[in-house]
Amino acid sequence: MQLSKRLAAELFGTFWLVLGGCGSAVLAANFAGPVHGLGIGFVGVSLAFGLTVLTMAYAIGHISGCHLNPVVSVGLTVAGRFPARDLLPYIVAQVVGAVLGAAVLALIASGKPGFELVASGFASNGYGERSPGHYSLAAAFVCEAVMTGFFLFVILGATDKRAPAGFAPIAIGLCLTLIHLASIPVTNTSVNPARSTGPALFVGGAAVDQLWLFWIAPIIGAVIAGVLYPLVAESGSADARKLALD
Amino acid sequence: MQLSKRLAAELFGTFWLVLGGCGSAVLAANFAGPVHGLGIGFVGVSLAFGLTVLTMAYAIGHISGCHLNPVVSVGLTVAGRFPARDLLPYIVAQVVGAVLGAAVLALIASGKPGFELVASGFASNGYGERSPGHYSLAAAFVCEAVMTGFFLFVILGATDKRAPAGFAPIAIGLCLTLIHLASIPVTNTSVNPARSTGPALFVGGAAVDQLWLFWIAPIIGAVIAGVLYPLVAESGSADARKLALD
Amino acid sequence: MQLSKRLAAELFGTFWLVLGGCGSAVLAANFAGPVHGLGIGFVGVSLAFGLTVLTMAYAIGHISGCHLNPVVSVGLTVAGRFPARDLLPYIVAQVVGAVLGAAVLALIASGKPGFELVASGFASNGYGERSPGHYSLAAAFVCEAVMTGFFLFVILGATDKRAPAGFAPIAIGLCLTLIHLASIPVTNTSVNPARSTGPALFVGGAAVDQLWLFWIAPIIGAVIAGVLYPLVAESGSADARKLALD
Amino acid sequence: MQLSKRLAAELFGTFWLVLGGCGSAVLAANFAGPVHGLGIGFVGVSLAFGLTVLTMAYAIGHISGCHLNPVVSVGLTVAGRFPARDLLPYIVAQVVGAVLGAAVLALIASGKPGFELVASGFASNGYGERSPGHYSLAAAFVCEAVMTGFFLFVILGATDKRAPAGFAPIAIGLCLTLIHLASIPVTNTSVNPARSTGPALFVGGAAVDQLWLFWIAPIIGAVIAGVLYPLVAESGSADARKLALD
Repeated sequence: MQLSKRLAAELFGTFWLVLGGCGSAVLAANFAGPVHGLGIGFVGVSLAFGLTVLTMAYAIGHISGCHLNPVVSVGLTVAGRFPARDLLPYIVAQVVGAVLGAAVLALIASGKPGFELVASGFASNGYGERSPGHYSLAAAFVCEAVMTGFFLFVILGATDKRAPAGFAPIAIGLCLTLIHLASIPVTNTSVNPARSTGPALFVGGAAVDQLWLFWIAPIIGAVIAGVLYPLVAESGSADARKLALD
Repeated sequence: MQLSKRLAAELFGTFWLVLGGCGSAVLAANFAGPVHGLGIGFVGVSLAFGLTVLTMAYAIGHISGCHLNPVVSVGLTVAGRFPARDLLPYIVAQVVGAVLGAAVLALIASGKPGFELVASGFASNGYGERSPGHYSLAAAFVCEAVMTGFFLFVILGATDKRAPAGFAPIAIGLCLTLIHLASIPVTNTSVNPARSTGPALFVGGAAVDQLWLFWIAPIIGAVIAGVLYPLVAESGSADARKLALD
Repeated sequence: MQLSKRLAAELFGTFWLVLGGCGSAVLAANFAGPVHGLGIGFVGVSLAFGLTVLTMAYAIGHISGCHLNPVVSVGLTVAGRFPARDLLPYIVAQVVGAVLGAAVLALIASGKPGFELVASGFASNGYGERSPGHYSLAAAFVCEAVMTGFFLFVILGATDKRAPAGFAPIAIGLCLTLIHLASIPVTNTSVNPARSTGPALFVGGAAVDQLWLFWIAPIIGAVIAGVLYPLVAESGSADARKLALD
Repeated sequence: MQLSKRLAAELFGTFWLVLGGCGSAVLAANFAGPVHGLGIGFVGVSLAFGLTVLTMAYAIGHISGCHLNPVVSVGLTVAGRFPARDLLPYIVAQVVGAVLGAAVLALIASGKPGFELVASGFASNGYGERSPGHYSLAAAFVCEAVMTGFFLFVILGATDKRAPAGFAPIAIGLCLTLIHLASIPVTNTSVNPARSTGPALFVGGAAVDQLWLFWIAPIIGAVIAGVLYPLVAESGSADARKLALD
């Protein structure tokens, strides 16, 4: 498949991740009802983020591999599954898609009387004062790095040739749901620098100032997983024995 | 398969979509409990709509293709996957099924003391005053067009010959869940003119007056996706290069 | 496979359906929390019922077919997919399993200080005064018959030889989830006379008096679906043309 | 595959089960919002536990079998599916993984101002005063044993050679979700002694004193299922006839 088409697929896919995932948070997480709250809460937002990946992985997996996330591309490169020469173009396409997705979301969200984009947080990620639960920078960093590490570990495992064919989008999408279920209170959950960048550019200020963490921590996690998975999974490597208990 | 049987399948399927999807909204979204709210909220309604498609796609996919939605038929026609001569019969069957589904739902819902069909909204779609979150006509239009576009994009991708066989109903059903998770507050979520028409005919008045948007916007989204997906996905087309980043 | 083993599988499976499904309703639907309600509500109960079927269908589908429900056995018999001579033994095994499941649930539930089995309703089904939303007998009857009809339609379609292999448990389990999402407020959702009978025997009184509806209405729905699906799905039958629109 | 790599996989997997499952409970179950509660409640925690298993089963199923639970290893051994000589190393790897997962969770959770690990319960399991719904020791014991028994029954069935290939992680993961949906109020749900041990070591005191139940009851359930499944499922065994109804 031509690189141009793969990049178009990544752009559309990351657009969808931000529109559907951040969109569910911005538009639907909080909603009063006549009897009780009707909003989807963190459960619904977690499900939405996972389903953006699940749906796109079936739709464009055969075109671009459906990374939708710079650190997924990084982790796959480290594990020897993705050519380094395509890394930068993929990341650019993902970030452009995320920004465009955030732009369309801003357009829709602004159609509600009284909506204030900056005050709402616009689903941006953050730590300290900007963490939903006011978690510290250190906790946010560890959380993003560890969650991303396991995310890449699951991606590498579920797309291993020995794993059942066709199920990887379910495993990977629902892994992102799981990560959100646990970590929205900590950082609003990134594990994806493109997803963080899109909304942050519209919020500006502190959201942009904190953006570095949502690039650095996920990259660290992804690199570790990209090194670790092959050590654990591939037979015949003497080095891997060091990991085992004794 | 004879056209008559395919139309019967589409009719039953769209009946199910309205009964199950709109039914969950009308009957179960709001429900008080002894300790806290027991109603299913927007999360439950989102899940229900998606599951109507997931379940029917496994049940009748091999009979009619399980469109259950006029703009799915339109998008597939534009993409060259569905014969134009069957378009009108499919749409008629879908709308008839949706109206019958709404009729049975009205019958059941009226069995609750004090139920007022018109005042309840009866799961009809709307914008402005009739939007759950009072979103503007413009926001509603953009939201319906964009969401339907991605819905068709996922449908075309997940049913591509290169996508894993058998998983399309999961991808497509859960894509409808995802769309609802994000957009119920905006328009009560249509992305399906048949689903909009069924309840609107029972509510009448403004619900019918606003029905045009839930035909026009989804059609626009579906046509764009029907043009775009082949450009991105099919190799060898020089035109598709224009879409790529550079 | 010997009939004795198939019956044992049906007994265990229906035990699981009542323990897991009714158990989630009795033990976990209502639960206060320090900040907001933690109970699983109707969404969680809906998910639980569906997952009892999904999990058992993968576990015992290859042993007994995993009906877990007298009217599933009836509908499959009507559609020519199940031998009539096994119908009665299957139904007995399912009812015994449901009663045993309810017994173990009663044992666990009674371990909570202040638990009153009869006053709690014990997840029994009902109409009128005993309907969660006080729906009338007529609404309850229509709801149970129609929901069961579509349930059987999905079962017959998803297990059709032309449907993708291996996915039927997902379609069927999540169909039960969908049915619960819409109809718990109406009847507490049965679509399964064995599931209704188990808890009703422990509650007694009006729960038993109303049990007839949860046998009759689902059977009617199942029989109609058992007749209809083959007409719609099988090519070459001239009769099926009568169903089509014109 | 070398034992060392299989143990590393079990360690990582059980780490993930505790971090993701207990993490969702500790970090996200309770969370206030501007309009209504945003926390994921018992539904979200149930989903999270199940998804830890679903995701890891696709990621490491081909490496270690993905037990992540001492009593899964025990039940598989009893059923003749796992070599007894690997039982102890697997259990050690699982417990070490669970403790490390709890340690990282403690690190993240402590980044929230005012977090008190012991007072929070830290997702530890318990009965009587330490049961979320104050269920008695007897109810907790029965619940853990029966739930674990069905869990192993589903595991043995879904991984049977006659079950559809590739779907076992979905059946098994969602079975754990189902078990949590019903039984969190009773014991905070264990069915996994490693998962119980991790958090208990950090909470200390009564959490450790009650740990015995979450080893003994699940083992009893797993052993019974390990004996029962082959009797029900394997043809040609005269003994199994005794189980059948007559």
